Amino acid sequence: MKILVSNLGSTTFKYKLFDMPGAAVLARGAMDRIGDDGGDSVHKFQVGDAGETEQVCDLPDHAAAIDEALRCLTGAAGPLASVDDLQAVGFKTVHARSITGVVEIDEDVIGRMEDFFRLAPAHNPAYVAAIRQFAKVAPAAPRVGCFEPAFHGKAPTRRQLYAIPQKWEQEYGIRRYGFHGASHRYAAEKVIELEGTSTLRHINCHLGGSSSLCAVKDGVSHGASHGLSPQGGVPQNNRIGDLDPYALQIVCDREGISLDEALEICASEGGLLGLSGGVSNDMRDLQERAVAGDERCALAIEVYTSSIRDYLGAYVVELGGLDVISFTGGIGEHSEIVRAQVLHGLEFLGVELDAKKNASVHGEGVLHATGSQVRLHVLQTDEELIVARQTHELLTGQ
Amino acid sequence: MKILVSNLGSTTFKYKLFDMPGAAVLARGAMDRIGDDGGDSVHKFQVGDAGETEQVCDLPDHAAAIDEALRCLTGAAGPLASVDDLQAVGFKTVHARSITGVVEIDEDVIGRMEDFFRLAPAHNPAYVAAIRQFAKVAPAAPRVGCFEPAFHGKAPTRRQLYAIPQKWEQEYGIRRYGFHGASHRYAAEKVIELEGTSTLRHINCHLGGSSSLCAVKDGVSHGASHGLSPQGGVPQNNRIGDLDPYALQIVCDREGISLDEALEICASEGGLLGLSGGVSNDMRDLQERAVAGDERCALAIEVYTSSIRDYLGAYVVELGGLDVISFTGGIGEHSEIVRAQVLHGLEFLGVELDAKKNASVHGEGVLHATGSQVRLHVLQTDEELIVARQTHELLTGQ
Repeated sequence: MKILVSNLGSTTFKYKLFDMPGAAVLARGAMDRIGDDGGDSVHKFQVGDAGETEQVCDLPDHAAAIDEALRCLTGAAGPLASVDDLQAVGFKTVHARSITGVVEIDEDVIGRMEDFFRLAPAHNPAYVAAIRQFAKVAPAAPRVGCFEPAFHGKAPTRRQLYAIPQKWEQEYGIRRYGFHGASHRYAAEKVIELEGTSTLRHINCHLGGSSSLCAVKDGVSHGASHGLSPQGGVPQNNRIGDLDPYALQIVCDREGISLDEALEICASEGGLLGLSGGVSNDMRDLQERAVAGDERCALAIEVYTSSIRDYLGAYVVELGGLDVISFTGGIGEHSEIVRAQVLHGLEFLGVELDAKKNASVHGEGVLHATGSQVRLHVLQTDEELIVARQTHELLTGQ
Repeated sequence: MKILVSNLGSTTFKYKLFDMPGAAVLARGAMDRIGDDGGDSVHKFQVGDAGETEQVCDLPDHAAAIDEALRCLTGAAGPLASVDDLQAVGFKTVHARSITGVVEIDEDVIGRMEDFFRLAPAHNPAYVAAIRQFAKVAPAAPRVGCFEPAFHGKAPTRRQLYAIPQKWEQEYGIRRYGFHGASHRYAAEKVIELEGTSTLRHINCHLGGSSSLCAVKDGVSHGASHGLSPQGGVPQNNRIGDLDPYALQIVCDREGISLDEALEICASEGGLLGLSGGVSNDMRDLQERAVAGDERCALAIEVYTSSIRDYLGAYVVELGGLDVISFTGGIGEHSEIVRAQVLHGLEFLGVELDAKKNASVHGEGVLHATGSQVRLHVLQTDEELIVARQTHELLTGQ
């Protein structure tokens, strides 16, 4: 089954064409500057293992980007004989009201995505535009939404609820959803494979520009640190993470701004950027400055790792102990400092970090000392593969 | 030193006159319905171990309540020869911008309390009124504020910061303060006394109408679960606890209400009341109904205890292991069900609960099985005693 996996941002479109269930990647591509006036977008395109081509093109909107991708995929060198050869489109969709699974996308689902435009303003409108375009130009290919919270829908109900009036939950869909579902699922499956058993108390740390933790018991999510929105949980690049909502009342009063304006600041000026006093939202910059003696940048890293440790502790209690901690995402794969701070002093839980391995591992490998009761893995996540698999599973029942 | 400890609510005034440093209680009293028109307030008053008297009186405001208390304390049977005999007034004050300690109250402190009226609307205005009245009628007695966050001011800086723009922290005082300082300090000191050592990794659970946890290392707070306001952290009677602030945007949009209105609902219709679908904000009611088979009430209790366990896990990691867990507050002292749920399955941390002790202890005692590595105490907190001690310490330097 040929499945096109679509990953959209406000100005970007990345895609991979999979042949499932074998998961061979038949082609891949990426476009940027969608919506720019200048006609200066670049479309990088690659068929199988052939060389990557680059083409400058004009992409006034996401619909144009999808037309451009299909033009190349069905062209002379492309892997699709025609659009009819495309059997499904899987979307790494972000958020829709009260959806915590993988679903075929119809008008009801689109309406639920629209209800949550405010919670994923960079992504939801782009996905809705792309879904509508695929429906128009490749109507025979079912469109499947692998929503970011999908992996967490089986978490215990007590972990999915806020202590709010029942109406807010039932009518407005205000719940603890959790995100990074595809990445956390990938990590859960990969760790089961690496450990040779599915009976595991596992915590995955997806640490990157966007960061979240997930508690995984025997392959099933027991909750993740993002909340209703991908802004919650651990502080992130320029996102606040957990915040007492009464802070907003103070800020709106003092600054004379609206709730919308305050939340916009939370999403763009908070996180590592805010903690560092506006220096950077990028962990690499902060590490460099912290090593050079900048105390505020060092503190920003400490607040970040301290928050990660809070969730780690919560999840150890949730899981009743610990067998594996894994790290993925840009920071998780590459930051020796963050991993060392997160794992510091956890010997009482059976965690023994090998400092040499921690200094040398980049991308994939293990970090635990020989004999450590808890195993420590570094993984390279593959979210598109998970979307392809879940789309295939939904449509074939396999 | 004769110190009057004052504990105020929006319509109540409770006080105790201590003789420090011995901490003998010379007199105590309580008044209700302050601000009512009808002249139907009751003043309960007791000198030493003598019988309690009750008097109906007219208390149009908090100033009148203070006059009434001083009238009885300096009356024929009272322990004060005159108002000049009163050497200090200690207030169990709630919240003031950027104050995390015990301070003598001047106009600057009153201004900081006024800055945070919105964060403690039932308490801060009552305290400011009372402080002004004492300044007027007993000007020679210094007024000392033992603010609720006081115990947490020495927590690591990384635990006191939100990931917000620096200006919000520095100018508006938006930080993780933590509350219940007097109660958590009492528990820290009491556990050191009971255990015979001050080298302790201790988590205190103050569980009542208002609920919070505190991590205590060697007698010093390393952080508490309430945040900027006493609304945050664990869900409480009718308070939401932790909530993704982006929820407010959804609620304001859908209900057509303001931020202030949404936050007022969070403070009055959230927590156990919201979780139970409006049934009750009282744990005793919820337990009764849960035992009788009401699933929503059972779920409300589970969300509450699950959140307590999240903080417990975070604090175990913060402390690097665990020696003591203690429970206090109405629920902590009396709820066998809550304690059992909180402590369930923690054997991997060295916690062994004795179910028989848990069923029989009310008020004070121990819960751990013989040989349990972690000791489990139930304590009756005494916040007024802490306020008296801290007031005495500040004024005498002892």
